[in-house]
Amino acid sequence: MKQKIGILALGHGSRHPHNKEVVNGVADLIAKKYDNVVVRIGFMNMNTPTMKEGLEAFKGTGVSTIVAVPIFLAHGVHTMEDIPQILGISRDSRKTTVKLDGKNVQLIYSEPLGIDELVAELAFKRAQEALASN
Amino acid sequence: MKQKIGILALGHGSRHPHNKEVVNGVADLIAKKYDNVVVRIGFMNMNTPTMKEGLEAFKGTGVSTIVAVPIFLAHGVHTMEDIPQILGISRDSRKTTVKLDGKNVQLIYSEPLGIDELVAELAFKRAQEALASN
Repeated sequence: MKQKIGILALGHGSRHPHNKEVVNGVADLIAKKYDNVVVRIGFMNMNTPTMKEGLEAFKGTGVSTIVAVPIFLAHGVHTMEDIPQILGISRDSRKTTVKLDGKNVQLIYSEPLGIDELVAELAFKRAQEALASN
Repeated sequence: MKQKIGILALGHGSRHPHNKEVVNGVADLIAKKYDNVVVRIGFMNMNTPTMKEGLEAFKGTGVSTIVAVPIFLAHGVHTMEDIPQILGISRDSRKTTVKLDGKNVQLIYSEPLGIDELVAELAFKRAQEALASN
């Protein structure tokens, strides 16, 4: 039986609605696109669910491992200091164990989006769209 | 003759090196991947070149239009207020004209990366990489 993996999409949060909309929208696309994955979201500040509430939201889903993926472009204070502290992940190990439904579940912290052809392709697409509408 | 387009990749800037590395890396990938495009970068704060210096860096390139693309995931105060102000772009028109080499060049402001399958794909890839290394 293939393991069921949880993905916790981590957002910055904002007083404007857009950050939450993007994290939510991306989380929905991941859930739609990939099998055997349970996706939840959590925000660092200004929006809910919080990251801890996001973790709790995996209760009852039967995931054996959760990967917390920062939906951030690059590392910075938030991804290197604030979020590891919220999730209780040490800087070195980049993982910990959480209790869900009385069972130990591994929580792994991934890299943020970073430098990738996919970002280049998307930025170019946004440029093309702006040109087309002008 | 096909028009030569400029892309000004706009970064947030950070006291850590990672934001600049990512914006720079993505700009390089765009330049490598697409023809007839001149790519420059500019940061809102904490890093150089500034956005204005980024615009100046198109001097001598012969671009007829520049698209300023926020390498930001979502709209927020920065993309909606700070950056348009720096670039002298009104909220409504989303474009302006700048002088380069004594010629008028159109400057168009694009949407940030936003919700897209490409972001979902990349987030899932980062999750898979984290799983593979644990």
